[in-house]
Amino acid sequence: VLGVGLIGGSIGLAARRRLGARVVGHDPDGQALAKALELGAIDEAAEGVAEAVRAADYVFLAVPVGSTIALAREALAGASADCVLSDVGSTKRRIARELADPRFVPGHPLAGAETSGVQGAQEELFDDAVWYLTPSGQGQSTAVARLSGLIEQLGADPVPIEADAHDRLMASVSHLPHVLANLLVAQALRAAPAPGAVARPPMLVANPSFRDATRVAGANTSVWIDIYLSNADLLAEALDEAIRELSGVRDALDAEDAAALAAWNDAARAAREQLAGSGRGAAGEARRAPAVSSEDS
Amino acid sequence: VLGVGLIGGSIGLAARRRLGARVVGHDPDGQALAKALELGAIDEAAEGVAEAVRAADYVFLAVPVGSTIALAREALAGASADCVLSDVGSTKRRIARELADPRFVPGHPLAGAETSGVQGAQEELFDDAVWYLTPSGQGQSTAVARLSGLIEQLGADPVPIEADAHDRLMASVSHLPHVLANLLVAQALRAAPAPGAVARPPMLVANPSFRDATRVAGANTSVWIDIYLSNADLLAEALDEAIRELSGVRDALDAEDAAALAAWNDAARAAREQLAGSGRGAAGEARRAPAVSSEDS
Repeated sequence: VLGVGLIGGSIGLAARRRLGARVVGHDPDGQALAKALELGAIDEAAEGVAEAVRAADYVFLAVPVGSTIALAREALAGASADCVLSDVGSTKRRIARELADPRFVPGHPLAGAETSGVQGAQEELFDDAVWYLTPSGQGQSTAVARLSGLIEQLGADPVPIEADAHDRLMASVSHLPHVLANLLVAQALRAAPAPGAVARPPMLVANPSFRDATRVAGANTSVWIDIYLSNADLLAEALDEAIRELSGVRDALDAEDAAALAAWNDAARAAREQLAGSGRGAAGEARRAPAVSSEDS
Repeated sequence: VLGVGLIGGSIGLAARRRLGARVVGHDPDGQALAKALELGAIDEAAEGVAEAVRAADYVFLAVPVGSTIALAREALAGASADCVLSDVGSTKRRIARELADPRFVPGHPLAGAETSGVQGAQEELFDDAVWYLTPSGQGQSTAVARLSGLIEQLGADPVPIEADAHDRLMASVSHLPHVLANLLVAQALRAAPAPGAVARPPMLVANPSFRDATRVAGANTSVWIDIYLSNADLLAEALDEAIRELSGVRDALDAEDAAALAAWNDAARAAREQLAGSGRGAAGEARRAPAVSSEDS
């Protein structure tokens, strides 16, 4: 495991406890590495990348997106011919394009927690999580099959997807929600009542919808700026689409156009139901969307 | 209780079980009224508004925002001189302006659930919830004190606030999050991979940040269009502000301006920490914002 943060540490914990694997970790941050050893996320702390990967059957790179490609080259140079390598980055086009080695199968587990760093690592972090894989093509079927088997043993659900489709999807279901969470906290602070307009501090986070929508606001800057920039074109498209939609809602409000607002809200409910149904898996059976409160705040 | 949906039903349950109150309910929907009786949310089903309020010490109107003012006038006409009346609507300026009766203290509990209708009513719905009160002014101190005491007995935390400040705040922390939730589900559906780009249905709701941010998407249309329109001016302002902010993020992405994106993300984290701290209550003691995962998806 190269990079022993929350994700790398959780891979180590799950691999050791569930597979009985021997896990070697490396991290440029010596304190994190020592902590990983102390917490049982790794069996052994390696001083360098080559030393860490030399005898490995599998290598996971769990570092920020912007550091992955250079590290992957170093790891591929040191790894055996039978080794399977993967990363956990949130965007996949660049890595799929730049790393042609059949041993490298780019990946992206949809997992996280309200903590960061190896001290938040959990054996159960990937249980039932989708773990996208974006193999770049030729000669990878054995590597994909082996990696998928390992991911299942870690508790997750490996899902192959094209790198382009993955990044387009993430722009809308991960990167845009993060941007909107940032927007919401900034706006709420500006909308806070002046002292005197409220008898005591305003409990701004009391609204359940606001609390949920802003859970990921202000996420780790260095990690997330990397992610945004590595998907800049598709995220910009998603933002343009969002701006168009918000302008439409604004015009409907100005015109007090109840019918337009109702049609827009009904379309959102239909989209939500369709999305919830789409997650059912191979059987294609529709899953009912959870009902939404008519009176939620 | 006039209107025995999720909120009205929950008020009835809590009042009966926690205060030993006798609760009379009225609802134009006879089935909902019968269900409320069957579930123990009310002791008695009244045929009309006047009959329901005649002997009441307290009256709660729990109907959509657009129906509240007319119903309040009818209830005020039938209620005793000592009765205290309130509503539970999500916007407060209009009602504070149009109902001058000192017996009427507008209110707004921040509570909801993933269900709607009286069948989802819960005695515990208001536990520890903020319940805003926007008294319109003169001669209401006794009514406010009595209503606040009752709200505390229902489990909630009564918080007086000016109606203007309330509506401005809700535009940003409730109505805008609902608009953005609608936007996110619609965009995610459009961004879904074409069949063939993914080996099986794409589990679009698998991203935790997306799932949380869209919990309230497609909420009850008639209820929410009322809310949006009753706060149209302030929500339009909030949308304009959101459009400006998204345009700025878009420009920073186009320019690959990592420094601008980092400053914007850091500001969001600071805002989030300040918001979390502001909820501490009268002591003003800072509450640490929950840490945000650097690797959350």
